[in-house]
Order: sequence, then structure tokens, then C-alpha cells
Amino acid sequence: MLVAAIQMNSQDDKEKNVRSAESLIDVAAQRGAKLAVLPEMFNFLGPGEQRPSEAEQIPGPTIERMMAKAIQHRMFIIAGSILETAPEPGKVYNTSVFINPEGNIIARYRKIHLFDVVVEGQPPYQESATVVPGDEIVISETDFGTVGLSVCYDMRFPELYCELVRRGAQIISIPAAFTLHTGLAHWEVLIRARAIENLSYVIAAAQVGSHPVNRECYGNSMIVDPWGTVLARAPNFESAVVSEIDLQYLNKVRTNLPSLTHRRDGIY
Amino acid sequence: MLVAAIQMNSQDDKEKNVRSAESLIDVAAQRGAKLAVLPEMFNFLGPGEQRPSEAEQIPGPTIERMMAKAIQHRMFIIAGSILETAPEPGKVYNTSVFINPEGNIIARYRKIHLFDVVVEGQPPYQESATVVPGDEIVISETDFGTVGLSVCYDMRFPELYCELVRRGAQIISIPAAFTLHTGLAHWEVLIRARAIENLSYVIAAAQVGSHPVNRECYGNSMIVDPWGTVLARAPNFESAVVSEIDLQYLNKVRTNLPSLTHRRDGIY
Repeated sequence: MLVAAIQMNSQDDKEKNVRSAESLIDVAAQRGAKLAVLPEMFNFLGPGEQRPSEAEQIPGPTIERMMAKAIQHRMFIIAGSILETAPEPGKVYNTSVFINPEGNIIARYRKIHLFDVVVEGQPPYQESATVVPGDEIVISETDFGTVGLSVCYDMRFPELYCELVRRGAQIISIPAAFTLHTGLAHWEVLIRARAIENLSYVIAAAQVGSHPVNRECYGNSMIVDPWGTVLARAPNFESAVVSEIDLQYLNKVRTNLPSLTHRRDGIY
Repeated sequence: MLVAAIQMNSQDDKEKNVRSAESLIDVAAQRGAKLAVLPEMFNFLGPGEQRPSEAEQIPGPTIERMMAKAIQHRMFIIAGSILETAPEPGKVYNTSVFINPEGNIIARYRKIHLFDVVVEGQPPYQESATVVPGDEIVISETDFGTVGLSVCYDMRFPELYCELVRRGAQIISIPAAFTLHTGLAHWEVLIRARAIENLSYVIAAAQVGSHPVNRECYGNSMIVDPWGTVLARAPNFESAVVSEIDLQYLNKVRTNLPSLTHRRDGIY
């Protein structure tokens, strides 16, 4: 089973972004991927104040085009995240959408942890100014394994991933728009730790390069195996990297190193 | 405030091990350390079947010598771990002992997660054959910050560290005897992840080299800051590495990146 992490340099031009996503999905499909993960906010990465007006229903125009791609290539697509219209006026969710090869939405996850952070040399991030947090942990069982959904900043919260694995996750999806500054110090370490401590595959699909306004993303999209090995890493531009997921190997690692059965849930 | 991670190559000769520990504590004190962390099973790292007979009361002969060192140098010592006599016949605890500069025991932590693991090219580890797991999470408040205690394999269980930090930990102690094979793949990643996701200092003091019987440890003792930077790393032999702990820096990192306040405890 081949999977792809798609790395993008999304801007504030939604049509252009969606066309880029479509053509990178085509590349992933040509290379044999049966699952492609797109990055966070792949269809719009622009100024914060434009976010509510760029939000969509799910399904809506962007997700319908991803459904068409899933059907065309008979593949699973995790539409990393898009802004989803929330009930509160002026508010949105940051939502990851999991589409199967029949073009059906099989899961949606609304980002639980919002990025309200001061990054050196940049204006403060305040995701919660426009985004409403989700409050549901989401896994999805498929014929190639059980997938746990998350988005970007979630990565800093190991308890989320412990719970995803408690619920059966074997493959973890982390679409992201990780900043350059924090990415240099934290991105690979946290992704590999999530893989190792959960004995799971991790597919981390990132934004890369400059985005409006004054935002710089780290890239380094990667696919990591349950031993923590980086199987694939994206170069520093838009690209689709492909690697193999092997649940027999995952089971072997979990048998030899049965830390998941050693958790002391009553104590923490 | 300077702290030391002491790296050892303990064998099955207890007197020799304790003397090594004493002289490495002397080195750490000469370099200005006010806290020294010793590795796991620093006073005896020999065949599993000898473990019950090498266990001690706490305090007992080994810990009394560490108390004397603490008084001599007016320093804190975390006596990484020793085997502590358990009530059940033939059974022991794997216990970390925290001693203050007055020579008093201010905390003891019994390892919660036991290493029952198959490591490539070695006979299976079955720590639970002789060791009884603890069931208590332990922090200790001192005048230089709040310390959270753990031991080696605990490192693979992020929920323990989340709870330590919930209880106030700023500095995390991880004495270890991490195997070479798993250390190459996992040691640094997991230590740095614990530091980053908990915005805490981590002092990881390891065994290094060959030990009876047929056991090889990874070394690479390190001190890591709350941003995940490796401040100090031990060379591949017995040594004491020293670095600075700065709670003002820790507070700055926790203010700019307030992920500890973004945890969604009701959801996991």
C-alpha cells in the first residue's frame, strides 16, 4: 500500500490552490499512491481577516473537486484541512476531510488545539480569533488500516495521539502549515516521537515557503514508520512524496516492543 | 543553577560502581553542579537472577553513601535508580531516590513501566520477572524548581510526563540504561519530544557500553532545554556533563508558546 504526503505552497488565490492540489494528486496517483494527504489550509492560506469569507460548507466547492479526484483515481484522499463555515457569524472550523475512492466523505475532524502563539520575528498568531475549536477525536477504519486524524498544532499534544491509538489508529494523518521558526526546532522531533511512542505510521503533509501575509512555512513533509524511521521527506518546494505502509511490519514492531500494552491508564 | 548528568558503565561489582558514582559526583561538584543525576541501576547492573540479592532498603548502604556525598558537596543528588527490596520474596522495585543538600531523602519514585521487550540480537528483556512496578507519580518541589521523577522505559509513555507537568514539574529527571539498539533509533527523539511538548528541562543520565550479561547501552546522556535544544551530551564513556538550568528562560518559552494552557483535558 503506497501513500503520499503532498506538500504545497498555498496562497490567497483559491482556484490556483485547488488546481495545484489536483495536479499533485495526479502525480501521487501516477506513482501508485492509494492514499494522498494534503496539507492544512491547502485551498486558502491568506490573511486572517479573509478567512471567514473563504470558508465553505462540507461538502462544498473545494471538497467536491477532491471527491471527483478520489473517484477518478480510485484513491483515498485526506483533504488536509479547509476552513469550514461555523454556525457563529464570522467564525470557521479548521477541518480535515477524509474521502474514500467512491467519493464519499468517511470522516471529518475539526482541529482541537488552536495556534495562539508568539513566534520570533512575526506578529502573534491568534488562530482562535476566527477559528472555533472542535471537540471530537476522530478515527476512521478502512480496508488498509485505521486512520487517526489531526491537524498541525495538535502535534504538540501527545495525549491526543495516545487516545487515537487507544481507539485503534495505526496510521496518523498530520496535515500542517508549521512555521519555519518552530519547524526548524520541533517538526521532525515531534513527528518521529508520535510515530515511536504510538508504534504507528505518520503521514505529515506540510505547507512550504512564503504565504501572505508575512508567513513562512517549514515544509519537510514526511512519512515516518512505527520505528521512527523517516521513509520519505519532501524537498523544499511543492511536491508529492510516496512511500509504503506495511501493517505486517507495524504488527511485528508492536509485538516486539509492546509498549501500547504497557500503558498504565489508571495512573496518569 | 548548574546541573549534571552522570553517565556510567556499571557492572556487577557494587562497591566499584558506588565508588565510580562518588568520584563522578565529585567531578560534577567541582564543575559547580548543584544537582547531579545518576543513571538507572547505577550501583548494580548485572545478571537478572542476582537482582533480588543485590536489592537494598532505602535508605541502605548505597543511599547512605549518596547522602554523605550530598552533604559533603551541599548539592542535590538524584540517585538514578537502585534495586529496592520489595515485600514479596524474590521481588524488587526499581527506585529513584532524590536527596537534598542536607542529606535527607525528599522523594522516591518507583518505576511505573517495566521493560518487557524483545530487542534484536539479544535475549528478551523481562523486567517484570523480578521488578514490581510502582503506581505513584512523583514530583518534588525544591528552591531551584519543581522536579518530576521517571526512569528509562517510562520515556515511551508521554502521558506520564503530561501529568508530571500538570502537577508542576519544570525539570524532568530520566535516569536510564537504554539499550544500544533502541537508543540509536529512539533515545534523542523521545527525550527532546518530552522537553518540547512539556516545555521543561530534561536531564537524562544513562548507562553506556557493555554490561553483564550480554547487554549494551547507548550512552548519550544529555541535558535538554524547554525549546528542545541539546545543551550537553556525554561522550561515549563514563563522564559528568554539566549545563545551566534557567527558569526565567523556561518561563519565557512557556509564555510565548503557551501550549500547556491549550491542553484539552476533558477530551482525551
